[in-house]
Amino acid sequence: MKTIENDALIRQLRWRYATKKFDPQRKITPRDWQTLEETLVLAPSSFGLQPWRFLVVDNPQMREQLVAASWNQRQVADASHLVVFAIKRDLGAADIERHLQRITEVRGVRLESLAAFRSMMMGTLVPPPPGFDVNDWAARQVYIALGNFMMAAALLGIDTCPLEGIEPAKYDELLGLAGSGYATQVAATAGYRANDDAYAQQPKVRYDIADVVRRVR
Amino acid sequence: MKTIENDALIRQLRWRYATKKFDPQRKITPRDWQTLEETLVLAPSSFGLQPWRFLVVDNPQMREQLVAASWNQRQVADASHLVVFAIKRDLGAADIERHLQRITEVRGVRLESLAAFRSMMMGTLVPPPPGFDVNDWAARQVYIALGNFMMAAALLGIDTCPLEGIEPAKYDELLGLAGSGYATQVAATAGYRANDDAYAQQPKVRYDIADVVRRVR
Repeated sequence: MKTIENDALIRQLRWRYATKKFDPQRKITPRDWQTLEETLVLAPSSFGLQPWRFLVVDNPQMREQLVAASWNQRQVADASHLVVFAIKRDLGAADIERHLQRITEVRGVRLESLAAFRSMMMGTLVPPPPGFDVNDWAARQVYIALGNFMMAAALLGIDTCPLEGIEPAKYDELLGLAGSGYATQVAATAGYRANDDAYAQQPKVRYDIADVVRRVR
Repeated sequence: MKTIENDALIRQLRWRYATKKFDPQRKITPRDWQTLEETLVLAPSSFGLQPWRFLVVDNPQMREQLVAASWNQRQVADASHLVVFAIKRDLGAADIERHLQRITEVRGVRLESLAAFRSMMMGTLVPPPPGFDVNDWAARQVYIALGNFMMAAALLGIDTCPLEGIEPAKYDELLGLAGSGYATQVAATAGYRANDDAYAQQPKVRYDIADVVRRVR
């Protein structure tokens, strides 16, 4: 079922930009934030393995400390919400078993019926093939969730900014991730643009569609 | 501006699944496909560098050849559309200059006014810091576009399936990417699920939100 008009979808994607300055007074409503959290949970991942965890940092003092681990970008403290996208490190057999267990719970099937699926995942990931780094792979999956988060927010009229310019090791330390099996990959702020954000009014820069999309006829 | 109701957004994300079997008779309309291509063009990327190219494979013979490079997954030929997500390899100074040039065109600003932005990008990427692989970075960016593609399709009522289980080197060879500076990273099919796709009716498997999203209070 089509849930959005084509023009409205494109308009919101054009409206979206990497917001540099947020209005610290405007907060995302609990209902909208709940929707964004559900969007994160529903993000697709390879084999459905969900090799991630999302940390929503509410604590203002912690947010201030994270500013210092983010090249002093004030949006980390000023935006309504901050979410840290962490990968599950060194994903392996135990994670595959956890996923299979979850499938049995949700679908009411027997573990034995998933033997072929287990073999496929184990064959792909345990051990990983030469040149395949499971942490790089998990990082790519996390970027699917990041993309979905930014798009869902835009459709809800919420501004976001992805933050690659952070110090992941400092984030891990501050957030207590060190030794947890999870590691910071990237972060995103969400909220509402400040009236005086200089970037808000600038035309979006993209290459021509003919340069970016090529038809193979 | 909110463009979609929260419930409708979540409903469509729940409706989405990795479609294994497509109806080969049902085609995406030109207008919907145009919208999906625009979604790809509008996908966010770090610094706005767009380190990617998207190949839309219309040629049926080529699609059949790609099936063989995709562990014989028939969806590669049967789905309405196939898009290959390629990274720009070894992104460097020339790509940064191209991007700056594009900014001057789109925004009507002088190249000299972008000196600080040039310095920031060059400082980050040329040369990349130790342990930072620009191709891995480009691959992560491509997954943002992949995530946006799947979500936009779901909102338009279109089924998709991401395809990591492909042989990128064979794709590159078949698609003429070898030596082009671009390289296959991942692919996705899009179209409409077959009535007898066994996976379509199964409940979506996700961990509990409390396991996936953690509040730092």
